[in-house]
Amino acid sequence: MEESHEDQPESTSNNTDVRPKRFRNLSSVNAASEEDLNSIVTHEDDSSLLTSVRSRHKQTIEPGSLNIAKYESLDYDTSENYLLLDEERSKGNQYFIRKDIARWLVFLLIGMFTALIACVIDIAIEELSQIKYKSLSKYVDDNIVEGKLYIPYFFFILYNIVPVFIGSTLVAYVEPIAAGSGIPQVKCYLNGVKVPRVVRIKTLIVKSIGVVCSVVGGLAGGKEGPMIHSGAVVAAGISQGKSTTFKKDFKIFKSFREDHEKRDFVCGGAAAGVSAAFGAPVGGVLFSLEEGSSFWNQSLTWRTFFASVVSTFTLNTVLSAYHGVPGDLSYPGLLNLGKLESISYQIYELPLFMLIGCIGGLLGALWNHVNYKLSVFRIIYLRKRWLRVLEACIVAAMSATIAMLMMFTLNDCKPVGQDPTKYPTQMYCGDGQYNVLASIWFQTPEASVRSLLHDPPNTHNAVSLAVFVIFYFMLSCWTFGLATSNGLFIPSLLTGAAWGRLVSVGLSRVFPSITSMNPGKYALIGAAAQLGGIVRMTISLTVIIMETTGNISFGLPLIVTLIAAKWTGDFFNEGIYDTHIQLSGVPLLPWDPPPMANNIYASEVMSHPVVTLKSVENVGHIVELLKLTTYNGFPVVDPPASDHGEVTTYGKIRGLILRSQLIVILQRKIFNECEQNWDEINYSIFQDEYPRYPTIDEVDITDIEKTYSIDLRPFMNRAPYTVSHSFTLPRMFRLFRALGLRHLPIVNDTNEVIGMVTRKDLARYRLWRHQGRMGIEELPISKDM
Amino acid sequence: MEESHEDQPESTSNNTDVRPKRFRNLSSVNAASEEDLNSIVTHEDDSSLLTSVRSRHKQTIEPGSLNIAKYESLDYDTSENYLLLDEERSKGNQYFIRKDIARWLVFLLIGMFTALIACVIDIAIEELSQIKYKSLSKYVDDNIVEGKLYIPYFFFILYNIVPVFIGSTLVAYVEPIAAGSGIPQVKCYLNGVKVPRVVRIKTLIVKSIGVVCSVVGGLAGGKEGPMIHSGAVVAAGISQGKSTTFKKDFKIFKSFREDHEKRDFVCGGAAAGVSAAFGAPVGGVLFSLEEGSSFWNQSLTWRTFFASVVSTFTLNTVLSAYHGVPGDLSYPGLLNLGKLESISYQIYELPLFMLIGCIGGLLGALWNHVNYKLSVFRIIYLRKRWLRVLEACIVAAMSATIAMLMMFTLNDCKPVGQDPTKYPTQMYCGDGQYNVLASIWFQTPEASVRSLLHDPPNTHNAVSLAVFVIFYFMLSCWTFGLATSNGLFIPSLLTGAAWGRLVSVGLSRVFPSITSMNPGKYALIGAAAQLGGIVRMTISLTVIIMETTGNISFGLPLIVTLIAAKWTGDFFNEGIYDTHIQLSGVPLLPWDPPPMANNIYASEVMSHPVVTLKSVENVGHIVELLKLTTYNGFPVVDPPASDHGEVTTYGKIRGLILRSQLIVILQRKIFNECEQNWDEINYSIFQDEYPRYPTIDEVDITDIEKTYSIDLRPFMNRAPYTVSHSFTLPRMFRLFRALGLRHLPIVNDTNEVIGMVTRKDLARYRLWRHQGRMGIEELPISKDM
Repeated sequence: MEESHEDQPESTSNNTDVRPKRFRNLSSVNAASEEDLNSIVTHEDDSSLLTSVRSRHKQTIEPGSLNIAKYESLDYDTSENYLLLDEERSKGNQYFIRKDIARWLVFLLIGMFTALIACVIDIAIEELSQIKYKSLSKYVDDNIVEGKLYIPYFFFILYNIVPVFIGSTLVAYVEPIAAGSGIPQVKCYLNGVKVPRVVRIKTLIVKSIGVVCSVVGGLAGGKEGPMIHSGAVVAAGISQGKSTTFKKDFKIFKSFREDHEKRDFVCGGAAAGVSAAFGAPVGGVLFSLEEGSSFWNQSLTWRTFFASVVSTFTLNTVLSAYHGVPGDLSYPGLLNLGKLESISYQIYELPLFMLIGCIGGLLGALWNHVNYKLSVFRIIYLRKRWLRVLEACIVAAMSATIAMLMMFTLNDCKPVGQDPTKYPTQMYCGDGQYNVLASIWFQTPEASVRSLLHDPPNTHNAVSLAVFVIFYFMLSCWTFGLATSNGLFIPSLLTGAAWGRLVSVGLSRVFPSITSMNPGKYALIGAAAQLGGIVRMTISLTVIIMETTGNISFGLPLIVTLIAAKWTGDFFNEGIYDTHIQLSGVPLLPWDPPPMANNIYASEVMSHPVVTLKSVENVGHIVELLKLTTYNGFPVVDPPASDHGEVTTYGKIRGLILRSQLIVILQRKIFNECEQNWDEINYSIFQDEYPRYPTIDEVDITDIEKTYSIDLRPFMNRAPYTVSHSFTLPRMFRLFRALGLRHLPIVNDTNEVIGMVTRKDLARYRLWRHQGRMGIEELPISKDM
Repeated sequence: MEESHEDQPESTSNNTDVRPKRFRNLSSVNAASEEDLNSIVTHEDDSSLLTSVRSRHKQTIEPGSLNIAKYESLDYDTSENYLLLDEERSKGNQYFIRKDIARWLVFLLIGMFTALIACVIDIAIEELSQIKYKSLSKYVDDNIVEGKLYIPYFFFILYNIVPVFIGSTLVAYVEPIAAGSGIPQVKCYLNGVKVPRVVRIKTLIVKSIGVVCSVVGGLAGGKEGPMIHSGAVVAAGISQGKSTTFKKDFKIFKSFREDHEKRDFVCGGAAAGVSAAFGAPVGGVLFSLEEGSSFWNQSLTWRTFFASVVSTFTLNTVLSAYHGVPGDLSYPGLLNLGKLESISYQIYELPLFMLIGCIGGLLGALWNHVNYKLSVFRIIYLRKRWLRVLEACIVAAMSATIAMLMMFTLNDCKPVGQDPTKYPTQMYCGDGQYNVLASIWFQTPEASVRSLLHDPPNTHNAVSLAVFVIFYFMLSCWTFGLATSNGLFIPSLLTGAAWGRLVSVGLSRVFPSITSMNPGKYALIGAAAQLGGIVRMTISLTVIIMETTGNISFGLPLIVTLIAAKWTGDFFNEGIYDTHIQLSGVPLLPWDPPPMANNIYASEVMSHPVVTLKSVENVGHIVELLKLTTYNGFPVVDPPASDHGEVTTYGKIRGLILRSQLIVILQRKIFNECEQNWDEINYSIFQDEYPRYPTIDEVDITDIEKTYSIDLRPFMNRAPYTVSHSFTLPRMFRLFRALGLRHLPIVNDTNEVIGMVTRKDLARYRLWRHQGRMGIEELPISKDM
């Protein structure tokens, strides 16, 4: 390390340091880190540099340390090598125009297929639920006279457990990533983290069957969240023109086979999913924007919007035909809350909405906390698959039990006619009356939300509502995170709508003179508050609810409610999706760099020593490296003047090459010593293998070949973004987020690679905020799968 | 330049070059550029490196070459120097929390004030227009019997010319930047180009008076575009807590005094403006997103949405009270198209809407082309201010003349009662009838749009509509670009609504059996098509129209129409805002890098030789540099080992310092040789002067002081983003757009600064597309003001 004197900027100043002590201190911190750099190879522990703030709070971290072995990053920064440039240059104008047209076509297809899948799921649920609830209603009324309530109870449990068993077995044994709503996973993917198998067709199939099973099985879950995931899978599937699940390559859309393009399509797919689920094309675009975009682009927005609109239109056409009103276009989304055009509000109601928002935030935070504890319990104790299936079945039985108990004990009767359910259940009610609770339970949860929003005043009595809220709150909390495919939108809306209606009942008792206390309005506000308190989405949730209810003028009350819910909830914990992302240890980068991180330098954050390659490198050495390390990117360097070191020697950076590229080169045996047909070596050799490259163990290299060498220069990214070791964490963070980087080589003053920063290095530093105090914490890293 | 052999990556390869000829060619291109680098000082013309594609089309460029002297870039990349780090570190947690609360407060104020200004403008226009049109209507009917039509004609001209004269004199003589809608300027600002004086309070005052004058003066212009501009000014004003116009510093919000923060607020202000203008909070957010964001952020979106909602709510409250229905909240925006909730559509109408979209795209492209020619004419011939005022008055007189002629010649009468105008003009019509054209002309254009959307079928006859469309098309085209403050939303909507209604009249004659040919629906589609064809906005325009009409279910027809309009229009030319931005020579970066630019390297794009400073630099030298050059950023370098060169010597990069920072240091005389009170030297010395720093000529430096030296290290940005000379144009472009950079130093292999890339260097390379062919063109650069 002869250049150590060059590494220190201070040594070159030819004046005495006239700056005050605090500046001198600052530079000495930096100088210290640079001294440290010069002795990197010997002592690797740089923890002495961490400020006390960070180390002090190292112990206060929840479970869910970063799982870096499982989650790799996507490469949004295109590897711009000679092959790519050459290909682009040779194809010319027409190529770009054709690619653009193909892109629009793919977005059209994404919109259509997402909607069609949604239709199939919706119709399946509709038909099966109808059979189930019709017969249950009949069983109840047939057996109630004789007091044999155990018969309907038995069938209820049976009808719940059988589908749930099928669904959760599929999820637990075939494709565990299909569990839950899939929104956290899609969010991770959009943010640049490769969650394994999240956009495979197998996942889509399991998810689709799973969601039908769990909704039909009467779990407190909805089909809307899974729609978003299925849109994402559809997008990834169509745009790549190949399927790993079916081992089929259609040889189309080859130029879209890279992380950057694929992510754009997945963005459109997620939006199309939201659009199909809620009939909310604008909300869909905003969802993709809010959850996904670290970098955004006008043309992508526009294409995403197009996919969303196509999706809601296709769904509308098909569902209208299914419901017997073809061409009527009155079914824009799966969640159909019915038009709420007539409701209006007065200014004095706004504080009331804000209060409801706060309640929603509190309840949401509680819900998240309980669910978090449950999830931790599941991670620790329910590791066996059959335990997960058993748990799902227990919840299914529990749902039936609670429903039956409530119907049985709270004998809430109303005259038939007010009720929108198709099969009114009489139970103990008099003739011409029906049991209100049976009508809530013997429906899909969506239909129940619709009832709560539209039922005329006095349909529900306060006690039934209160009991329902308590049990459904617990049930939905227990359900989210089960090994079944279902979302939490609908159960949250249902809980919220129920207590919102309860609030309006309370208010109209306190202020009987006020006539505008439309219970449906308060049910809507309550639903928004509860959902907002749980998911903490902002503008997209507002727009989704506005679009679902078809009421624009009700925007302000919704926004006020949601802001209050978010702020209240954020005071206690994070949104449920972020909680689950953290629990699974995904190195997701937050929106902003942690605010107090200006004194953390690249030299502290980076991994070192870094494994580098020479521009012309020995094959055996490469094979060894790939086998020994798990790194995904290797800086290509010029060997230093004095060629004494081996792997860790510094060298001037020339480029960056990926593990996947090296493997493809090895597999194709593009060695200097072999005669090559260079016409066949073009960029598509990488596209053919994308996205699942073979492992190094699958590549056969003979011992003779190991003495050969590879010229890496045509393949490496010749201009990787690099930064100096004196960069601060926030500046690196912004670079990562803005450009979607995966590897950021850190160089010293003479452009020699001294370290490497990846997403996980940055994700480790997290803002720690608790009861008004803040600090930076450094997460531990777990390497087990 | 002893390291020339190191500059060439090829020279280090210790194998023979086994790659095929095409790769060797590629590297030789690069090598050539590097050879060129080594002889930079002697021959500066690198035009030999430009590919033939670019040079061939150099001559086909329109007027409006890049005006780099006038437009500077904003610094979105915070200059992270010791002072800033020190300040942030010393302030701690509480500081960040307080700053966050202050930020929300500022967004609240922005929303409120934007809405209040909108209210004042709206009420002024309403009152004055009422007086004007009431008396005109009376003059017409009083004098028509005696045939003395010249009397109302004279008054009409007078009533038009007087306000227009006032407005255009203000604009032409006091603040020319207040002309037009201001949307192009706001768009530039949001994209990082500092358009001089665009967010000053003086501009706001001139704009507000100007817009009242031009709308009252009967010009074919609207008040909506200026609202967006005024929102932006309000945001800039409030967030900075000081005003240059009034020379007043309130000493608040000091920490927001930097380009990055200011731009975020302006983003919110523009959204609040859209929200106030159209009652479209979601549309406002999307507008800011679509026009402004090269980088986006969840919390910014959320705050922007908050400002938008506050804005429409405030406006609603005030205007409802003004219209005598306080608390009713039925005036969400200035443009009030009235609820169109009842309209619906059939699937077979979608192709029809698409066709209307295409017509809109064609007409819009024609409009843009004519307006472009007119604008070029204005730039070349109407340079004198009084000529601009005269032109405005001529257009005002012309508007009156056309209106009178149409009323006079097309005697279109309808029975009174159908008409929504307050003062029906009888003219030659029989008793109990009114002149339809008079009712269109004797209203503000907005009211006319509303009439066209809501008037029952058969209100307007085809000939009147056709004549109106032709003349209004020409009139609005002539009006946009006058020296008056007015926007083009309303005139475009009006033209489109008129021909949309015409289409429905035609359709109902061809297919008399179809009953759903609601003329209001076609008027709306026509309006959207025409506006979309002119401005080429995408998702934001769709949402704005959806929100303005209060009809969500009509989203699909609108989107289909707008997509068709945009694609058709884009085939011929650019949107009107982009055309005007280009005409004024603003170096605006497009969304994507030009697609065929992969063979353009940093070494060709960069400016060189680059002027650098040493870390401890002589005061006299700095003063000389600042006086001699116009550069705004200077790399700070270590002097090279052999200290032979002067200004252009290469040196290892240590940091980057801005002209503004140097001036502040000089002004404060922070010299090494003077005793300094370091406690007073902190980051706020830069914030105090922001955004208008003194020029170097305003700083007094004595001859003795010129022998002193400055230690630049505490003040410089210690970690500027730099890239290697082998970066391609698209990669630099992405870095610039994603991070909002202003200066990008280009370094060679040993980290020595060899050039500098700024926004204008990148903006020069533009995609050139004409009749299906494409290429890269390089714009000429004009340096005159």
